[in-house]
Amino acid sequence: MATTEDAFAGLGGAGLSSWRDGAAKQAIVEFVARVCGERGSEPVPVEERVAVFDNDGTLWCEKPMPIQLDFILRRLVEMAEADAALRERQPWKAAYERDYGWLSAVMAEHYAGDETNVKVLAGGILAAYDGISVEDFEAQADAFLRTAKHPTLGHGYLACAYAPMVELLAYLAANGFSNYIVSGGGRDFMRPISEEVYGIPRQRVIGSSSALAYTSNERGGTITHKAEADYLDDGPEKPIRIWSRTGRRPLLAAGNSNGDVPMLHFTQHHDLSSLRLLVLHDDGEREFAYTSGAEQALDQAASDGWTVISVKNDWATVF
Amino acid sequence: MATTEDAFAGLGGAGLSSWRDGAAKQAIVEFVARVCGERGSEPVPVEERVAVFDNDGTLWCEKPMPIQLDFILRRLVEMAEADAALRERQPWKAAYERDYGWLSAVMAEHYAGDETNVKVLAGGILAAYDGISVEDFEAQADAFLRTAKHPTLGHGYLACAYAPMVELLAYLAANGFSNYIVSGGGRDFMRPISEEVYGIPRQRVIGSSSALAYTSNERGGTITHKAEADYLDDGPEKPIRIWSRTGRRPLLAAGNSNGDVPMLHFTQHHDLSSLRLLVLHDDGEREFAYTSGAEQALDQAASDGWTVISVKNDWATVF
Repeated sequence: MATTEDAFAGLGGAGLSSWRDGAAKQAIVEFVARVCGERGSEPVPVEERVAVFDNDGTLWCEKPMPIQLDFILRRLVEMAEADAALRERQPWKAAYERDYGWLSAVMAEHYAGDETNVKVLAGGILAAYDGISVEDFEAQADAFLRTAKHPTLGHGYLACAYAPMVELLAYLAANGFSNYIVSGGGRDFMRPISEEVYGIPRQRVIGSSSALAYTSNERGGTITHKAEADYLDDGPEKPIRIWSRTGRRPLLAAGNSNGDVPMLHFTQHHDLSSLRLLVLHDDGEREFAYTSGAEQALDQAASDGWTVISVKNDWATVF
Repeated sequence: MATTEDAFAGLGGAGLSSWRDGAAKQAIVEFVARVCGERGSEPVPVEERVAVFDNDGTLWCEKPMPIQLDFILRRLVEMAEADAALRERQPWKAAYERDYGWLSAVMAEHYAGDETNVKVLAGGILAAYDGISVEDFEAQADAFLRTAKHPTLGHGYLACAYAPMVELLAYLAANGFSNYIVSGGGRDFMRPISEEVYGIPRQRVIGSSSALAYTSNERGGTITHKAEADYLDDGPEKPIRIWSRTGRRPLLAAGNSNGDVPMLHFTQHHDLSSLRLLVLHDDGEREFAYTSGAEQALDQAASDGWTVISVKNDWATVF
């Protein structure tokens, strides 16, 4: 029974029908009830109800490769088709030859702390959009996301969002939370579809970005991508970007990999309760089973008492 | 008469009682009515109603020096009092000796395109807060803004906001606009007072920032200032920061100086009407009369048909 006049009702988990009853769902429902003042505590002011979500592997599927990587590889292939010299240089060579082994090795090296080939890949990615306007980039991302299909799941990329997480976002919004995406992926890649897929408006999408340049012209000027990174929104950069955008510490954070650990640590108040969620990909039947790149996060979850969401056990439906 | 079912009423200028009837007020009221669909056009979707405001000289008084410069000079004086060697180095020397001539010369050089001493000043400013946590910095800014007095106007700094602009912000908010501060001043300097003074929540404050670092600890980690700039939110950086934060072009922009010209240019849609406002400081009686640093902006206003707001003629009250 509500003990306060909070405008939000807690809702007792209504709307979380893709979640199976269990510890994860219970932790979510009890946390939201506490935030809304239904556990005898003061309700948390609505403006403090900030929730942050990693995207790849947390809100939508990231295997066999991150969705944005597919987008980028297609662009690299286009470039290699137009310029034969690029076919001998990485990362165009791997893209042109569909050499997924090279790309997998780069990711494995990255998780092992070796950034040499990550820099080669990043250089190619940045060169791939050098000089494009932010509007044109967004139109390309939008068209790709609405037409391209996931290579194995048999549906389009927009249907790769996890149904239970989409429900969680709506449940939090109904309880006064402001949800933000805090992704290592590209901010401007996700913006055209964030409202439709997640109910998250574009001003609440935080992600990586290339450096931008502004040029005046009589039609309102143009903002274009430069061939250099502004920042990569991963690891310790995530708390910094959350602070820069919101000016607050979140009350709830959800992630799935080592790069989310600082964001989950940062989601902590001395006077308010917080909820840290970690998605565990343990369902090779309905999705993909993997813990590579999440080892440190799983250790921290165990030692710090974060709530682990098992895809296999906690989700009645995945997509 | 409203021709649509827009949720917002246009309000016909109600709430703008500090504005004198005239071309500026009329331009504002007619623009808002158009946006709300009261001039026979389709109402602009609420999510597109983004309005951006420079702060120093646009929303609050920036003479005889920007309010944040007073804050910084006091810190430099403290540092010089604690360390005699600093008293021989700029900018500590000027701060310690209250040598406002040196500081004025730096600003004059800046407007003339010479950044040599601006870099000396910026180096001092960045060193002044090296290593401070964002929470401690904000507490210091908050305490200063609530206690320090303007040197000549005879009231506290929080009362240095222009009453007609505060009314304009409320009028726009009542008509479905999301107002943002887009200041060359420090983002984290303004955040603790932006809601109270302007009704603008902290996540809608865009401004300059030093580079930040995140360090983990068991109490949720700490974000601290580094002794280097992340970016200076002025000139062509303003459109870039508006895009990065909001993902949109604004519908309305207000500024007062050359550094606002790119932001005003950027406030232009091919299919929606926009309003560009330029505050002209022409009232030496009630405030300060100056056009230094605004020459290019005034030229652009004349050639592009921006709406010039005369402090002397358009504002019935200033503070």
